[in-house]
Parts: sequence; C-alpha cells; structure tokens
Amino acid sequence: MSDYTGHNFIDGQRSAAGHGSLQSFDATTGEPLPGFYSEATREEVDAAAQAAATAYQPYRTLPATRRAAFLDAIADELDALDEEFIATVCRETALPAARIQGERARTSGQMRLFAKVLRRGDFFGARIDRALPDRQPLSRPDLRQYHIGIGPVAVFGASNFPLAFSTAGGDTAAALAAGCPVVFKAHPGHMATAERVALAIIRAAEKTEMPAGVFNMIYGGMVGAWLVQHPAIKAVGFTGSLKGGRALCDLAAARPEPIPVFAEMSSVNPVLVLPEALKVRGSKIAAELSASVVQGAGQFCTKPGMVIGIRSPEFQAFLDELAQQINAHPAQTLLNAGGLCNYTDGLTRLHEHPQIQHRAGQPQAGGQAHPQLYEAAAELLINGDELLQHEVFGPVVVVVAVKDREELQRALQGLQGQLTATLIAEPADLEAFADLTPLLELKAGRLLLNGYPTGVEVCDAMVHGGPYPATSDARGSSVGTVSINRFLRPICFQNYPDNLLPDALKNANPLGIARLVDGVSTTEAVS
Amino acid sequence: MSDYTGHNFIDGQRSAAGHGSLQSFDATTGEPLPGFYSEATREEVDAAAQAAATAYQPYRTLPATRRAAFLDAIADELDALDEEFIATVCRETALPAARIQGERARTSGQMRLFAKVLRRGDFFGARIDRALPDRQPLSRPDLRQYHIGIGPVAVFGASNFPLAFSTAGGDTAAALAAGCPVVFKAHPGHMATAERVALAIIRAAEKTEMPAGVFNMIYGGMVGAWLVQHPAIKAVGFTGSLKGGRALCDLAAARPEPIPVFAEMSSVNPVLVLPEALKVRGSKIAAELSASVVQGAGQFCTKPGMVIGIRSPEFQAFLDELAQQINAHPAQTLLNAGGLCNYTDGLTRLHEHPQIQHRAGQPQAGGQAHPQLYEAAAELLINGDELLQHEVFGPVVVVVAVKDREELQRALQGLQGQLTATLIAEPADLEAFADLTPLLELKAGRLLLNGYPTGVEVCDAMVHGGPYPATSDARGSSVGTVSINRFLRPICFQNYPDNLLPDALKNANPLGIARLVDGVSTTEAVS
Repeated sequence: MSDYTGHNFIDGQRSAAGHGSLQSFDATTGEPLPGFYSEATREEVDAAAQAAATAYQPYRTLPATRRAAFLDAIADELDALDEEFIATVCRETALPAARIQGERARTSGQMRLFAKVLRRGDFFGARIDRALPDRQPLSRPDLRQYHIGIGPVAVFGASNFPLAFSTAGGDTAAALAAGCPVVFKAHPGHMATAERVALAIIRAAEKTEMPAGVFNMIYGGMVGAWLVQHPAIKAVGFTGSLKGGRALCDLAAARPEPIPVFAEMSSVNPVLVLPEALKVRGSKIAAELSASVVQGAGQFCTKPGMVIGIRSPEFQAFLDELAQQINAHPAQTLLNAGGLCNYTDGLTRLHEHPQIQHRAGQPQAGGQAHPQLYEAAAELLINGDELLQHEVFGPVVVVVAVKDREELQRALQGLQGQLTATLIAEPADLEAFADLTPLLELKAGRLLLNGYPTGVEVCDAMVHGGPYPATSDARGSSVGTVSINRFLRPICFQNYPDNLLPDALKNANPLGIARLVDGVSTTEAVS
Repeated sequence: MSDYTGHNFIDGQRSAAGHGSLQSFDATTGEPLPGFYSEATREEVDAAAQAAATAYQPYRTLPATRRAAFLDAIADELDALDEEFIATVCRETALPAARIQGERARTSGQMRLFAKVLRRGDFFGARIDRALPDRQPLSRPDLRQYHIGIGPVAVFGASNFPLAFSTAGGDTAAALAAGCPVVFKAHPGHMATAERVALAIIRAAEKTEMPAGVFNMIYGGMVGAWLVQHPAIKAVGFTGSLKGGRALCDLAAARPEPIPVFAEMSSVNPVLVLPEALKVRGSKIAAELSASVVQGAGQFCTKPGMVIGIRSPEFQAFLDELAQQINAHPAQTLLNAGGLCNYTDGLTRLHEHPQIQHRAGQPQAGGQAHPQLYEAAAELLINGDELLQHEVFGPVVVVVAVKDREELQRALQGLQGQLTATLIAEPADLEAFADLTPLLELKAGRLLLNGYPTGVEVCDAMVHGGPYPATSDARGSSVGTVSINRFLRPICFQNYPDNLLPDALKNANPLGIARLVDGVSTTEAVS
C-alpha cells in the first residue's frame, strides 16, 4: 500500500513538487476517497515530457520483440491486480465489478494483441525497391522504407472506460507498440485507479528493462494544455468531449511545430430501423435498442443516441414500445457528479427546443440518471441543427421520423460524422435500400447490420473513428490494431549497406516479415 | 488552339465569371505571354468545390480498375502533348527542353505507377476478422475493414516542377488514385502549362467516362484560401514555401471541421562529409556536391543547402575546392522574377548575419542567380538559429564546420526536420560514426549514403516527407505510392452480407488481393 502516494510518475520516479490537494470521490456516495493526489507543476510537466523524449531513442530502437515482451508484461501485471483494485475502480466509477473484470480482460487482451502485431511485423510497412544500375536514361538507387514511432505521445484517457480507454488503454497500447514513450494525463474521475494501473505499467517496464521514461503519468487540470504545447510531444491521443478534444486540437495546431491530435469526441450513432424489419420484429428491436441505450447508463461513445425510421403504423407501434421500455428502465448512477450535471444540462437543452418533444422517461431529478426518449422533427436533421447532433452522454435517445425514402436520404445527408451507423433491416429492406450503405460510408467509421454499436471488438478489422466531429481525423481509429498507424511515420534509406539497415529491411529478412519487394509482397530474402 | 481560353475548369466546363486579367510571363525575358487567365470568383471557387463533392460518390465507388484506366489515359494524354507544349513550359519556367521532356515522362510514369497500385489493391488495406459465434464470454461478429478516399482534395502545385509537382503531379495522382476528386489551384508561374495539362486530364476523363467534376482547376490568388475553407474540401496537398504552407495549415485547422493538410515546405537537406571520405575523394565530393547545388539552378526541394563536416586539413582543402567550383559555375535564370527576388533576399539575410561568412560566388546582381557559398558558425546550428535553417531557394549552400564528434552530435540535434539527410562516407566512417543513422532518422524522411538528394525516385519505397518544417505532417510522403495513404480513411463493416460488401472484402476475393484474414495475410477466398 505504501506505493499509493498520489505522486506523479516521471522518468521511473515519483514526484510531488506541487500541492497534493486533488481528491478522488466515491461515484455512488459522492464522499471523498482516502488519499490526495499531487497536481503536477509546470516543471513536472516539462520533466515528464523530457523523460519521454530521453526514452524515445533507446525505446524505439529496441527490437520489436522487446517491446512486445513489455506489452505482454503489462498485460500480466494488469491481470494480476487484486480484488482491492477492482473494488477501487468500482468505487471511483460506480461501474459494477463484473463490468470492470471484463474491461480489465479487454485491456490486457489489447496489450497482447499489439504484442502480436509487433511480432507479425506488418506495422513496419517494409518496402524494398532494389537498385536498377542499368536502367535508362537514369539508374535507380536501392531504396528501402519502413516505419518508426513518431516520438513521445501525450495521452488523455476517458472517464467511461477507466481501464480500456485510460492509463493502459488503447491509445497507450498503440503508442507504446509504435515505439513512442507516453505521458499520460491521469483522468480526474479515477485517479486511484490510474495510480494502480500506472504502477502496474512501471513494474512491467522494470521487469522487461525498458528505459525509465517510457511511461509517465501526471495529475492535474492545466497540465493537459502544458503537455500538448510541450515541444517534446509529437502526437496526442484523446478520448472525451468535443469541447475538450477541439481545444487540444486548436492548441496543437497553433504550436510553432504543429502536431497531429487524434481525438475521439462526439457521436450520436444513428440507428436506422427499416420498414420490413419493423414489420417482422418491431417489439424485439424496441427491447434490444432500449437495452443498448441504457447499457452502462448510456455512457458509451457508441451508445445509439438517435433512431431514424420512416413513418408508418409499424414505426408508431415500435415507438410506443420503445417508450414503454425506456419508462421501465430504472435510473442509474453515472460515473461522476460532473457527468450527471452534463446529462441534466443536455436534457434541459432538448426539453427547451421547440421542435423536440419529450416522449418517455421519468423527470430527471436526484442523484441518478433517468432514461429518456425524445422525438425531433426531421427538418432539424436536414437543416443541420447543432443541438440534435450534440452527443448527450447518458441513457437518452432521440427519435427522428421521416415521411418517406426521399426525406430519409436528405436526413442522412444532414448527419455529421459518426463513429457508427447501424441498419436494422431484413433482406427485403437491404434490397430496397441498397443506396444507404454508400451514403453511410461517408458518415461513419463503422457500419453495422442488425447489431447494436455498443460493443467495440478489439481486432485487426475494427474501426473506432469517423469524420468530424466523431473524431478530429477520420483517417485514424482508436481501437484495433490499425490504430498503431496514427503514431508511425515512414523513413526511406537510399543505397544503405545491409549491416546499417534496420532488421526489417535487411536482405536476409531476419524478422521473416512480409515486405513489398519491387512491387510484389513476399517474405523471401532479397539478394 | 481554341481550347486555350484561360478560363477556369469547373465540372467539366470552362467558366470565366470574373476578370480575365491574369497574365503569364516568359521567365527568361520577363515579357508577358499571349493570352489572359480568368481569376476565379468566390462563386466559381464554390462551384468547383461543389463539383468535386458531387463527383466524389460516383467516382469513389467506381471499381479501382476504372480509376486505373483513367490514370493511364491521363498518362497517355500527357505523353501525346506536342512540341508546342514543351516550348510553352520552357518559356514559362526557363527550364530546358530536355528537362521538361524528362519531367513529363516522370509525370506520366507516376500516373501509371498509381494505376498499378490500384490494380494491385494493397491500398485497400483489406482486413477480415471472421465471426466467432461460440467465443466465450462473448461471441465475435464478422468484421471487415477497407479504405476509401477521404473526399474532395484541394491541390496546390509547386513552381519548380511545372509538371511533376503541379496540375497532374504527385498530389493529384495520389488523390485521384485514392478515389478523391481534385480541385487544383493553378500555379501563377505557369498558367499556360497548367491549362494544357488540365485539358489533357479532361480529355482522359471524358474518354474513360469519369464524372464531370472529377478534376477542376481554378486560377487566381485569393482562391486558395477560399478553397481550403470550403466545407466540401476534405484534405489539402501543397508544395511550396513554409510561409504559404503554414498559412494553409492554420486556415484548415481553424475551420468548423478541421481537415488535414499535407504541405511539403522547407528543407536544407544537410550533407555530412565524413573524415575518411574526405581523405579518399575530397575533390570528387566537392565537384559532385557543387553540381548538385547548382543543378536546375538549385530550385529543388531536395537541393543540398547545408554541408557539415569536422574541421581538418582535408575538410579545409575540400572547402577550398568547393569554393572554386561554386565560383566557376555560371549564373542561371530562375523560374520567375519572384524567385529571383526571394533568392536575393535570402542571400542578403545570410550576408548580414554576423556569424555567417561569404566564402564564394560572384556578387548577386542582374537578372540571373549566381551560385554562392557561405560558412556559418556551428553554434548557430546548436542554438537553433532560424536563419541558418531557412531554405533559400536557388544555387546557394552553407557550410558548417564543427570541431569534433561531440560538437557534430550537438549540431545535428539542433537540426530542424528535413526531407533528406545525406552521409558521404567510407566504410571506416560508417563504423566510426554508426551512431549518426539513428539520430538522422529523427530528423529526416530519407537518408542517403554516398549520393545526392536531388533525384527523387517515384517508387514504392520512396519517402518525400519529414518532420516539421520539412512538411506539416511527418506521417506523409508526397512522392511514391505510399503517398496515397494521406487521402484514405478506414471503414469497417460489421455483420454485412457478402453481396453488400465492397469487392475488396467479399468472401470469394474477386479482386484477388492480399488481405489480412484472422491475423494472417492471404490472397485466398474466405468461407
């Protein structure tokens, strides 16, 4: 227990130069939890960024298999955390133990998946164009390309996944896999959890003999802005609100040396319920959808926040059932008091909008979040009304009824960028509405058929990203192995001798990886 | 000749709503060339962006082989341009005919290489994770990922490659290959060239039945800012000055929906001459290096603008020879009058810096650029003096002599981001200075050994990019097939039926492309 000091993690040491006055709270009772956390000073933020910069060169030049061993060790340390840890996370977040157990397994599994990517070696993007000394009119030199980590990465975790999108979450895993040391800004909503996870990472770093500054963590509020502005930081990963994410993007873009920010921010995750599906299984859809809306108190980036359908008797019946379901679901405790404030504010804005009607849900009051159903006029979507597409974090869903196919198209065109878009459809719907998929591709990073978006599988094919404002850069994903690409940059060697090339590019292909050689993918050695 | 109207290219039509008052000039005589060009109005800029947006959906959903046929057709049209075309380019740029012939071949070759990439299909980045219905505790859905074009791209060409980095240049080729329609801002330095190339693209688009707005071109000054701010534009490719590139980055970052800008801007391309190489072949290096500095009047992004070596008698002898060479090279005509102004200003700033000495070159005067050699104190590099690393476009090179290995390391650490870094070295040097390569990787996109950076091969392994200020995003390259990645974003399909999936992700693998299936790369069908 003596490790639980509340101090910052800088260069493998604990540091508390500033005031140790930050407190964490029991999410259910609102009572402060034991212990204080030390807000990092400007000097400590500098030291953390500098420690990451110092670790960068030795860390990135380690064999990928060494980094893989580090990630595996983190996974083992996470899995070995005890019941006291689970209880701590539960107290800080009001999430149930089974969920935290599952999320821990997801988090360690994610580390192990990136370890696999490092051993597989496709992240190197190795390409070799051999010399053509006799080519006319000009000879071609030997050219070889691979990818290296972009440099130290600042990571901002989310409140809603205290493990999987936080201290040792997806952004940290992707950055560490890419060869980038991390400075993590501890989330104020779960500082005790963050400390325990950071300690697990540090134990893994020590066991696998990583450079001291490979992982650093700082507590505080202003520290985030300082961190993003620090010249040693070369990229940012963020999961949170549109306001917070955009502020970091603006800071990063205004630096003397601008850096990329991958912010996952705001999505209402539209679900389109198509006519034949409503005829065949309207009640079932209402039950499944409402369960997805209230799951985890609606505190998922991929919570279905909008349902769109074409007016019909079946759609009306479905809406009535959905309203009953929403009314029947109990109130739930949110992650923290700030979340409840934001939820209440969001509901108030919906309530006050003249073209949005309240359809179901107990009046919002007290310390828990009551599930809510609203209905908005289709014109709001067509005309790009901001409020309608403003993510409200919590168990609320907005229905939009359109009058026909033509209005459906226009409504979808009015959608802002989304993490997901879902079709609930029968085969006959898919035939009748075949034009929807190409349109939805422009609006979202992941398209689902007859599922609900709240499960985000960690795998090679997943995309957890999408056009603005879902993320700040539609070319990234913050879940799945493709997310490593955000933190990599290409390097080319021209006429380098074999012994000076990285292993990924050596003639003999000692790593045994797939490489594009003279335009053909192969695992063979080159001569 | 009747096609040469000087009008803008919008949605497959010519348009001239504004004043047709822009003129192009003979780069050698300064005389205006016949004809006027119509500066696009704000409405025309909107129309061009909108035309690209309208073309986006039909264009991106074409089979990749259709886009490949379009690129091949552009290449054929470029190759078919007549002697009058070559003469026009020469008059507008003062570049010799042989160079323009070579650059045309490079430009059409680049189009054909991207056509090959489209047929090869690796740009899809296809990944399939098959359903695991029996997995515990949760089943896994079927997940499939591929990449699509990000949307309409605004392209700003460079003055120094009127073909290869301009209207039908690398950024245009990469964007069109990715499935992104283009709005090209014609470079004011070669508007007649731009018109002829745009007509070639339009002929190819018509022959291969592309959507009308797949390629648009506008003339003018302010039009660039309007274009980057237009909501339909989803990414920007730029080659030019740091000032111009940064201004576009700032505009793009301040949009309601920020968009990525890939700007290739400023690089001094350091060349390190190591001791043993100087002993063995100092004279040869001086001759080769000076030839590279003055080649094309030093108007290359990869011109070696800085030479770094360790003080020694051999280094001094090398410098003396380099000075002789620079003195012996004749003055040359630059691409345009603005270029000569900038060159003269750049030399004046070097001249006036108290810690930079002029070492060789005729006094700069008259209508041509005289090659110049300067020597700067090593402290300037170590202390990050801005001027020393400010690219001066034209035949000038700055030498930095360091006193020992330790000062060499510190000087290199002071380097800003570069497109290239070059080692001139013997095997003994490489052994003695093995620590240089990992350091230079952090500073540049391409590392060369015993070559000169001015040739940029168009191939799979090339990287023409690097950390800021060489480019605005070190993760991109603006030459070579990897440059297509800048304009692609990933999409994931969850539980989609085979017939609704894009061909790249269908079970049978009808395109026969390599795909990552359950973590293994294969061209096999999946079941």
